[in-house]
Amino acid sequence: MTSTQDTAWTDLQRHWQELADLGGIGSLLGWDQSTYLPSGAAAGRSRQQALLSRLRHERATDPGYGRQLEAAAARDDLSPLQTRMLAVARKNFEEATRFPAEFVSAWSQHGGESYSAWTTARPANDFARMVPYLEKSLDLSLQAASYFPEFGDPMDYFIDQSDEGMTAAQVGDVFAQLRAALVPMVEAVTAAPAPRTDFLFRAYPVQAQLSFGEAVSRDYGYDFTRGRQDLTHHPFMTRLGSADVRITTRVKEHDLGEALYSTLHETGHALYEQGVSEDLLGTPLGGGVSAGVHESQSRLWENLVGRSRPFWAAYFGRLRDAFPEQLSDVTEDEMHRAVNTVARSLIRTDADELTYNLHVITRYDLERDLLSGRLAVRDLADAWHAAYETNLGQRAPSDVDGALQDVHWYFGSIGGAFQGYTLGNVLSAQFYAAAEAANPGLEADIGRGDFARLHGWLREHVYAHGRRFPPTELLSRATGQGLTVAPYLKYLREKYSALYGVTF
Amino acid sequence: MTSTQDTAWTDLQRHWQELADLGGIGSLLGWDQSTYLPSGAAAGRSRQQALLSRLRHERATDPGYGRQLEAAAARDDLSPLQTRMLAVARKNFEEATRFPAEFVSAWSQHGGESYSAWTTARPANDFARMVPYLEKSLDLSLQAASYFPEFGDPMDYFIDQSDEGMTAAQVGDVFAQLRAALVPMVEAVTAAPAPRTDFLFRAYPVQAQLSFGEAVSRDYGYDFTRGRQDLTHHPFMTRLGSADVRITTRVKEHDLGEALYSTLHETGHALYEQGVSEDLLGTPLGGGVSAGVHESQSRLWENLVGRSRPFWAAYFGRLRDAFPEQLSDVTEDEMHRAVNTVARSLIRTDADELTYNLHVITRYDLERDLLSGRLAVRDLADAWHAAYETNLGQRAPSDVDGALQDVHWYFGSIGGAFQGYTLGNVLSAQFYAAAEAANPGLEADIGRGDFARLHGWLREHVYAHGRRFPPTELLSRATGQGLTVAPYLKYLREKYSALYGVTF
Repeated sequence: MTSTQDTAWTDLQRHWQELADLGGIGSLLGWDQSTYLPSGAAAGRSRQQALLSRLRHERATDPGYGRQLEAAAARDDLSPLQTRMLAVARKNFEEATRFPAEFVSAWSQHGGESYSAWTTARPANDFARMVPYLEKSLDLSLQAASYFPEFGDPMDYFIDQSDEGMTAAQVGDVFAQLRAALVPMVEAVTAAPAPRTDFLFRAYPVQAQLSFGEAVSRDYGYDFTRGRQDLTHHPFMTRLGSADVRITTRVKEHDLGEALYSTLHETGHALYEQGVSEDLLGTPLGGGVSAGVHESQSRLWENLVGRSRPFWAAYFGRLRDAFPEQLSDVTEDEMHRAVNTVARSLIRTDADELTYNLHVITRYDLERDLLSGRLAVRDLADAWHAAYETNLGQRAPSDVDGALQDVHWYFGSIGGAFQGYTLGNVLSAQFYAAAEAANPGLEADIGRGDFARLHGWLREHVYAHGRRFPPTELLSRATGQGLTVAPYLKYLREKYSALYGVTF
Repeated sequence: MTSTQDTAWTDLQRHWQELADLGGIGSLLGWDQSTYLPSGAAAGRSRQQALLSRLRHERATDPGYGRQLEAAAARDDLSPLQTRMLAVARKNFEEATRFPAEFVSAWSQHGGESYSAWTTARPANDFARMVPYLEKSLDLSLQAASYFPEFGDPMDYFIDQSDEGMTAAQVGDVFAQLRAALVPMVEAVTAAPAPRTDFLFRAYPVQAQLSFGEAVSRDYGYDFTRGRQDLTHHPFMTRLGSADVRITTRVKEHDLGEALYSTLHETGHALYEQGVSEDLLGTPLGGGVSAGVHESQSRLWENLVGRSRPFWAAYFGRLRDAFPEQLSDVTEDEMHRAVNTVARSLIRTDADELTYNLHVITRYDLERDLLSGRLAVRDLADAWHAAYETNLGQRAPSDVDGALQDVHWYFGSIGGAFQGYTLGNVLSAQFYAAAEAANPGLEADIGRGDFARLHGWLREHVYAHGRRFPPTELLSRATGQGLTVAPYLKYLREKYSALYGVTF
């Protein structure tokens, strides 16, 4: 490598660091908006966010930067790590520059208008009002995909946006296997007697709930010197800087599970981001690699660990110390059963582990049918109800909890918004099984509240790599397998047959 | 005005709004750093702040913008308001363009690093560690002043930065009159019997203290839908957006006065910012006009109102409702006396109204001596102790409460940081006297906890104008006077001779 080339690489790194810093500033604007922003300050904040997005976009699409990327791509002396950095940077550049500016502006404006309409149409149960917005969203989404003709199927384009390298065919195959297994499992489990859950809804003081959740989060390995937890309406994890990865939660005084599992879920995302190797931070590889792998970590720490029998062996005593009166008549076993209650429901975000994927698969199918033209927007609300009857044996009383339920479709884009959630569940079991295989006695660790080996294995095999490998390569390096539902179904079968005394 | 000229003015306004939004984003970065930033994230935050400063600087110094300003200045059809906007914009442009970009970036980064070092050096009483930082700060400050040779004395340059149009000669004159009057007053008052204060240091639960302070702040007129209060180490007020003006406070469980008067002080600053006329926001005039006028409002609401006899007539009952046990043996009169205790002390921010200005004058003199080269940084800690002995008859046991005491010198700049506090005290009495003259019976309002007329008069005569008039013009329009210490000394003499039964 000549010194000119060194300089050229240093210039790229500086540019990447600047893009990362602008991204972190944008995250702070968003974090503050969701936590502490005074109610009257929303309009001014939106204008600040639009300004910062524009500044970041200008830098991300700067033609001089594009020429630097092309020059670097012509080099033959790059390390594999540098080659991957450059590939991801070029992909990002391509994605940022291929849309004409007028299209970006029209799409963004439509997104704002659509979201704003949805915030009043949903409470009014007025799906008809959203039809023209959704039709425009669909048109614009198809137009966006048309700028990337190398993806034949628009759904492939949208999946690749969040789950690099995965395709509609792959996802469809996995989802078909899952649906075939889950529908009868839900049948069997919901036919069995439901566990006792009354005590979850007693009065649990907010501050004590927060303290307990933060103690578990700290035990998991979340580093509060490089993060923090605050209250918000819709919990999320966000990276504000190299050493600043925050989580948020919400607490309901009369629902013990709400804050705890929201905290553990976001802690999973945060462990991933906090575990990214320092030399990748501030580069195109400095973050989680895909929606699916990210969700695998939130779900692993929330469900495979946090709703497990050994977890409650470690924590039930401590929880009862925090809430002695509320839990005076409750056993460890009852707690474990209560947090694994399965029930058909209408709301995705409230769904249990077993039915959750059926909510996701339903939405995925509808997206695919909208994008392929098999389903017209005006028929979406009815198609939603029909799909819920088929997949979950439930029908929402209105569109409020039907096609108007999730915000995802009302930001102006349709496609690729949901599959990551279920891919995450599938992947969580693959990673967990591999960690167990490599660390005999891992369950006993968890039973002592000792997460060092699990966290350590995940950090080494998943977190540290950031975006260094595409998701499927990361998966096969970590687990020796491709994407497969077998470990996830095995986990669910063993867990729920034991909990509910049924066989599948 | 032709339509081309309309467009030109609209372009200027858009640019000013963008500068204001970048300023607001920078304030958010700073607010977060002082309230919620994880301890490990300081370095990354400094880099983000440096980046944002650079981006704002690029826009503030854009040559095209400079040409727009010159073109506008050549017009003869501007209103007086537009003329003043343009004058302030051109002053800002001049100030921003004389510094090279690298200088600005280096200064900003040094400020972050110096602050970060101070946060650990101060608790460790390690002044020596800060010497190189301070030396660099002094170098950079002198370098900054050297870009403005039209101010012969660097101190004039720094005073003008925060108190437009004032000079070291003027400030020196006011300070000399004050010192001459204050030293014997402090002598006399501290020789008199001290009031009872024991009850201020009983245990007052933190949350109840915060609630009480926020209730008074709301009564004063602070709009919590366009602001909020959070905890920090060193309380401040900050504007994050047009409708987002926040305050911070600190609470000590065993010091009732700490949180309350800190909240009332920052509320005064916030009332000023929240009262700026909407049509000035997002323009060069959209904020308080000077450090001195700003401090006049914090001190007016903290001291002239919040430590007055009528204030406690209105609030003592409510305070005792909040803390019935702690205040069971205390009278309204004892409370009023206790919060006006005069004592020689070491800490500026804890100092009473009467000794406070001697703390400020001491710092002002040290700054002036550092900038003039009469004092070397390495001798600053000793010079501090010597000056305290002379002015306040006190010596700090270490540098923690000596030269390491205030954050001001540890943001990377030395000069002009302190005179505004004492100018503010002087101005507070001038504005208050004018408000009283225009509103007979104002004290009786305060005695009922009714601040509407006082707040209304200040909003109309001070707040609404933002930077529309230079400080001395604002003062003469509001009070009919120039800067004069007479009302302040009259206020102090009347108050403290009555409280302590002494004559001056």
